Amino acid sequence: MSHPELEGYHGEILEHLRKARARIGNLIRVTSKTGDVHEGYLFPRYQYGDQHHVVLKLRNGYNVGIHLGRTEKIEVIGEGEKPKFTKAPPLPKQFRLPRVSIISTGGTIASRVDYRTGAVEPALSAEELASVVPELESIAEIDAHILYSEYSENLTPEHWTGMAEEAARKISRGADGIIITHGTDTMHYTAAALSFALQHLPVPVILVGAQRSSDRPSSDAATNLTGGTAIAAAADMAAVGVAMHEEISDHHIIAHKGTRVRKCHSSRRDTFKSIETRPLARYDLTTHRLETMDSGTKRDKKRQLTLKPSFDPSAYLLKSYPGFDHRSIDSAIQQGARGIVLEGTGLGHVPRTSYDSISHAVRKDIPVFMTSQTIWGRVDMNVYSTGRDLLNLGVAPLEDMIPETALVKLMWTLAQTKSPDEIRRLMLEPVAGEIIPRTPYLMEEVH
Amino acid sequence: MSHPELEGYHGEILEHLRKARARIGNLIRVTSKTGDVHEGYLFPRYQYGDQHHVVLKLRNGYNVGIHLGRTEKIEVIGEGEKPKFTKAPPLPKQFRLPRVSIISTGGTIASRVDYRTGAVEPALSAEELASVVPELESIAEIDAHILYSEYSENLTPEHWTGMAEEAARKISRGADGIIITHGTDTMHYTAAALSFALQHLPVPVILVGAQRSSDRPSSDAATNLTGGTAIAAAADMAAVGVAMHEEISDHHIIAHKGTRVRKCHSSRRDTFKSIETRPLARYDLTTHRLETMDSGTKRDKKRQLTLKPSFDPSAYLLKSYPGFDHRSIDSAIQQGARGIVLEGTGLGHVPRTSYDSISHAVRKDIPVFMTSQTIWGRVDMNVYSTGRDLLNLGVAPLEDMIPETALVKLMWTLAQTKSPDEIRRLMLEPVAGEIIPRTPYLMEEVH
Repeated sequence: MSHPELEGYHGEILEHLRKARARIGNLIRVTSKTGDVHEGYLFPRYQYGDQHHVVLKLRNGYNVGIHLGRTEKIEVIGEGEKPKFTKAPPLPKQFRLPRVSIISTGGTIASRVDYRTGAVEPALSAEELASVVPELESIAEIDAHILYSEYSENLTPEHWTGMAEEAARKISRGADGIIITHGTDTMHYTAAALSFALQHLPVPVILVGAQRSSDRPSSDAATNLTGGTAIAAAADMAAVGVAMHEEISDHHIIAHKGTRVRKCHSSRRDTFKSIETRPLARYDLTTHRLETMDSGTKRDKKRQLTLKPSFDPSAYLLKSYPGFDHRSIDSAIQQGARGIVLEGTGLGHVPRTSYDSISHAVRKDIPVFMTSQTIWGRVDMNVYSTGRDLLNLGVAPLEDMIPETALVKLMWTLAQTKSPDEIRRLMLEPVAGEIIPRTPYLMEEVH
Repeated sequence: MSHPELEGYHGEILEHLRKARARIGNLIRVTSKTGDVHEGYLFPRYQYGDQHHVVLKLRNGYNVGIHLGRTEKIEVIGEGEKPKFTKAPPLPKQFRLPRVSIISTGGTIASRVDYRTGAVEPALSAEELASVVPELESIAEIDAHILYSEYSENLTPEHWTGMAEEAARKISRGADGIIITHGTDTMHYTAAALSFALQHLPVPVILVGAQRSSDRPSSDAATNLTGGTAIAAAADMAAVGVAMHEEISDHHIIAHKGTRVRKCHSSRRDTFKSIETRPLARYDLTTHRLETMDSGTKRDKKRQLTLKPSFDPSAYLLKSYPGFDHRSIDSAIQQGARGIVLEGTGLGHVPRTSYDSISHAVRKDIPVFMTSQTIWGRVDMNVYSTGRDLLNLGVAPLEDMIPETALVKLMWTLAQTKSPDEIRRLMLEPVAGEIIPRTPYLMEEVH
């Protein structure tokens, strides 16, 4: 039995809400036995199984989940009027906050549930995205608009080009920081892409996503957007970063360097991790303290951005494993690969059954690069005979570049030049922290 | 200028050794300014750049690196006699230690440098492998032999079959535990394979490798073998595990469950990590305390092993990324794929440009499974439209199975049955901890 007016609620709580004649979108008041009162607009639920919480959108824009026992009293105190968020008139120039442009591309963070119809809308409008997080107005002067409306698994290198061009446009118009809201699935690929496309950045470009949509009491959309905006507005650095929860709790938003970040959990809010590098900046959600951790390049609005937004997707990432079919390399060649990144094992190895196919690629002037599926650590192809064999075949080791970043850099490099030698040279030239040069010899006991 | 008699040494230290007329393999004595004396056989070096350490093999079988300043005195006190390691005569039966069989398959742990010729030998003989770690004799009665002599990147599913059969043979002859020494590159793939091939194990089967070969002062070969043997001999559990350093330091050897372990660093000694599960056992190298952490199945020599050692390698692991060429799926089909594991993004997604190729595979009765490249976390294809689309196409989500384990399980499953329906059923039936059933609904705030 479906109850569209109470979508997502079931069991006891459904009965409780029906008795109170509550409907999604109504302004309701919940009074607990101990006298605690919560008022807000009733949200639909999409989390299966929970029969204990109602979700309310409070007047301040936050969503809360309220545990509903048998003893709580529910009253409908208003119809589903959409709360109005009106922007304050602009302050005189001398009091102005930093200007942050929000570019929305889709994903969970931009999804919302219409609390009158219960339908999931693909994207918040520019004004709405900013207005559902009222704190933003205290951090920056926001302008926001929708560029794309896609879940990130459907974003392509062409979208990276569009985002880079849009960010460059906003920067040329004086933005003090850019926020790109983005699905989390491939946010790290986009972050790497923008790191190569937007060189000599004058201000930060921060990607922000959410692991929980806004109809869930634990949504991280507002906190990530708040912290990301603070970092974009005020951190004293100028790089592409990914800003998300540092921990499961709502304590810190951390910005990871765009070329050294990876989504490492399918559902946790602290899913993004910096891979063997210091994050860019941290924002404390409680104290509002902003800490710039990596100011390798400080912000400087006079710096002239170099825009190199093109990508050629004819790059392949092939992961090696026991029983790996070397014909996968042959197929990539036949499909028009202009370059191949191998995700080898350990220090950068593949089975010797792949040698002929690799050799074939190299002879056809298709550069072949080596990374490691260990994710952490550096490839080193001088240690074992397999590595030396592969070096002799012409495979180029990519130091400590993570496989996903290596793929994106190859797509970018392929768009910069037609020359295989130049492709190999560019791949090994650090552009945006994607390669951390090997430190001078340290005692082997140390690492 | 090459100095074969002092291979790997250069700079000041080379001069120092040449003045002392030392050669690789000589028994030498190093006396420091403060009177500390070290005696041992001079080892060659392969670590580039270090000009400060000589490596000696001590008479007790250990290797040490000694910092050599200008003030240390070096004397040659003997020619390169190979030290003899003789086994003690067997104890009367009532005093016998547990019996552990060591099966060597190659890799760094089985590599050694002949300290007279300086050449790297591919494998230690059975007696030698045990004898270079004299502690083993105090832990277990050891028998050891060489099954393969391959770096693990060249091991194939056929080798897994051979290892499973060999382990089963040793168990049938009464071993209290099995050690398989193995290259670390693909040790986790083999561990998963043996977990499926050796069901209802009566005793532990522990894979042991090394990240540093025995010519390096920081070699972890001896400590890993010691801890692994203690776990195989005495931990009160019966599962396939991978035993390596828990930390960088020499404090603990930890055994990870074979289906939930991954190599996560290209060079660190603590490279193997348990993925969202408790390890099997821990051995303290200082106190010799052995802790069984997961005794889901206790050791029981009366339990009857079920051996299912076959694998069919016609399984493909395909990783999705922005710009992923759906023709890679078509190629796998053409190459004879009998099953495909997708390594999707986030909760289990691939670009919609791949839908037709996936659909084509499913129509051809080639089962397609979903895992996540986030590694940690569980796929959940009910949350977003992409996931629901893929479910509708017939893609089967593999819960929290890690991609490498899913590939190995698919190779194993393909060898158990020809029926696509049965393949799908077996893949989702937990055999060896590869799937941890979803816990009953927890507050979404928790995870």
